[in-house]
Amino acid sequence: MRDVFVLGVGQTPVGEWWDRSLRDLAADALQAAVSDAGVDLPQALFVANMLAARISNQTQLGALIASHVGWRGLEATTVEAACASGGVAIQAAVRAIASGMLDLVAVCGVEKMTDATGGPVTTALATAADADFEGAHGATFVALNALIMRRYMHEHRIAHEAFAPFGLNAHANAVHNPNAMFRRAITMETWRRAPVISDPVNLFDSSPVADGAAALILGSAELARASGQAPLRVMASACATDSVDLASRDDPIDLYAARLSARRACDQARLGPGDMDLFELHDAFSIMAALSLEAAGFAGPGQATQLAADGEISPQGRIPVCTLGGLKGRGHPVGATGVYQLVDLATQLRGDAGAAQVPGAAIGMAQNIGGTGATVVTHILAADD
Amino acid sequence: MRDVFVLGVGQTPVGEWWDRSLRDLAADALQAAVSDAGVDLPQALFVANMLAARISNQTQLGALIASHVGWRGLEATTVEAACASGGVAIQAAVRAIASGMLDLVAVCGVEKMTDATGGPVTTALATAADADFEGAHGATFVALNALIMRRYMHEHRIAHEAFAPFGLNAHANAVHNPNAMFRRAITMETWRRAPVISDPVNLFDSSPVADGAAALILGSAELARASGQAPLRVMASACATDSVDLASRDDPIDLYAARLSARRACDQARLGPGDMDLFELHDAFSIMAALSLEAAGFAGPGQATQLAADGEISPQGRIPVCTLGGLKGRGHPVGATGVYQLVDLATQLRGDAGAAQVPGAAIGMAQNIGGTGATVVTHILAADD
Repeated sequence: MRDVFVLGVGQTPVGEWWDRSLRDLAADALQAAVSDAGVDLPQALFVANMLAARISNQTQLGALIASHVGWRGLEATTVEAACASGGVAIQAAVRAIASGMLDLVAVCGVEKMTDATGGPVTTALATAADADFEGAHGATFVALNALIMRRYMHEHRIAHEAFAPFGLNAHANAVHNPNAMFRRAITMETWRRAPVISDPVNLFDSSPVADGAAALILGSAELARASGQAPLRVMASACATDSVDLASRDDPIDLYAARLSARRACDQARLGPGDMDLFELHDAFSIMAALSLEAAGFAGPGQATQLAADGEISPQGRIPVCTLGGLKGRGHPVGATGVYQLVDLATQLRGDAGAAQVPGAAIGMAQNIGGTGATVVTHILAADD
Repeated sequence: MRDVFVLGVGQTPVGEWWDRSLRDLAADALQAAVSDAGVDLPQALFVANMLAARISNQTQLGALIASHVGWRGLEATTVEAACASGGVAIQAAVRAIASGMLDLVAVCGVEKMTDATGGPVTTALATAADADFEGAHGATFVALNALIMRRYMHEHRIAHEAFAPFGLNAHANAVHNPNAMFRRAITMETWRRAPVISDPVNLFDSSPVADGAAALILGSAELARASGQAPLRVMASACATDSVDLASRDDPIDLYAARLSARRACDQARLGPGDMDLFELHDAFSIMAALSLEAAGFAGPGQATQLAADGEISPQGRIPVCTLGGLKGRGHPVGATGVYQLVDLATQLRGDAGAAQVPGAAIGMAQNIGGTGATVVTHILAADD
């Protein structure tokens, strides 16, 4: 396989975009990425999206967005795995170049959750659960995460407050990200006063759904050399799955697919967790942040909250997470999130993160999770020397 | 890039499967394909599906189906481009092998349209049109095809009855396909008595939506050699797009994306339309059959109905189409159709089509169309000598 590089990144701020349509947001991010990469027309577009079929009454976003950007005729498709859609779309794009079939491709993650003309968003999000064995019983997505969190607290004898550092870190880091939805730090006192969403999950355990689009331009080594700026090498792109329903899993508080995906990524890159300077994890809920850290090998079972309490997930810590706010602080436009994660990772590896910069960041991992851990995609990027 | 081969095919009969769920149908097709290929566990699964998010309340089908088949942990994702979902999923699978990253992958196209628990099917199918500029005005998908057909009849001064040979050919061929939904031939008299669905589109101009799943096992040259049976080489896999809405196109009766996709496929394969022994086209509506023949270079503009009238699309003709019934006779489980097309093509190239066999079939093309021509994927397969 051929080497693949990130040549450019683009994004819209995450938030409520009442005056921009889904295709507008996607075009904004793509044009920013193309401009950042200093290229013209890519040879293909991979769109990551979860909800448009339901809440915007729109399928085949590939053709829709390619045409709207002015790329008529372009190869274009949508790749979907619920909230891991961004990760799987990036993987498809990586392979298009690795195969030698294409040299320059664009990835765009986009989600438009305000103006949901096609139906309620909570019901749409519940499609990430097993419709026959979980959704049919009325389980919302936050309820399933609450069940996992409660089980984790019970098994590992951990108090709910132990999860607070995840929310505090995410909000503290988001302050420095101009594209984040919540650019304000929170205190422990604020965290304690948070309303409960689905016991034990409180407001600061949960990321906000929102509108947003993020884009990447990926290219071959030849184009990376020609690009002028320091390219980032895609060291690994690995996906794994588990049963969608929680009841079929061996252990609901061990993210098997996340562990497998991280291991596959480390094998591809010939690197280990100890080599990572930062980890953009999928903190859709704080319990997922903890489970992702454990599955990817940064903490032992039941040890993730202690790692957070010790300050090791902060920008100055051993393994900084959610360095530009993560899903909690930046916002979670579900199908776009995996692409935002790689944009954030690239921003750090380029040294462009400003006040949020992780000192000396050269290699980083991102992990994107679909459902309650059913589809997991892990990427490793490295600044190319 | 590495060569890619079709090692096995599987399918369920197309029809109304009231007693089988979406995941059951997918597992049936995948198990048949794996058994046909004589392999065990593939390294990845690409699912093609259009409607499950809406009508079955289910996203991330990759994980759902992989787990149901017993392939827990497998890399798995969904690839979507409305009715061209099958084509784009196959393309993603081809690249996974061509890149050298994987050696053995499965593709499964599945659609479950009876038991639509999430909402009405006609509304869900309309998501293949432009939601903001067509769907919002109440245009159903058949209405858009009726507009195109009317325009074609006007521009080329062609009578509606000229489209009859497409329906007659599809039904005649479906008789010999045990997996077809409508295994009965129709006469010109039956065609003339058909009720009008959306003027001028009549019942026999329209394919039936249905349940079904089809699967392919793709592998590397090494695995193809080891497989024992004669493998089929993937000569080309090419996608192109156009605007989703008809109004933005230069010419609504010239399928630009189909032309581009076919040309790209021919360039990849270093073959032309004259080299094809059969053409599995996308006859969702008879007007699409005509436009696909013209766009792919088998007939000049406005000449496709004459080609059909001359008997050239029959199994003994110059370019047999819908040789096992096509979308009209086999049935059109929308997101699965592109995979069914390649299963049919493979069946012909292996000489396994029985009474429907195209004599001496060695090279064939399949063209899968999303929307009214917005996403088009063309594949060329060849029997390997």
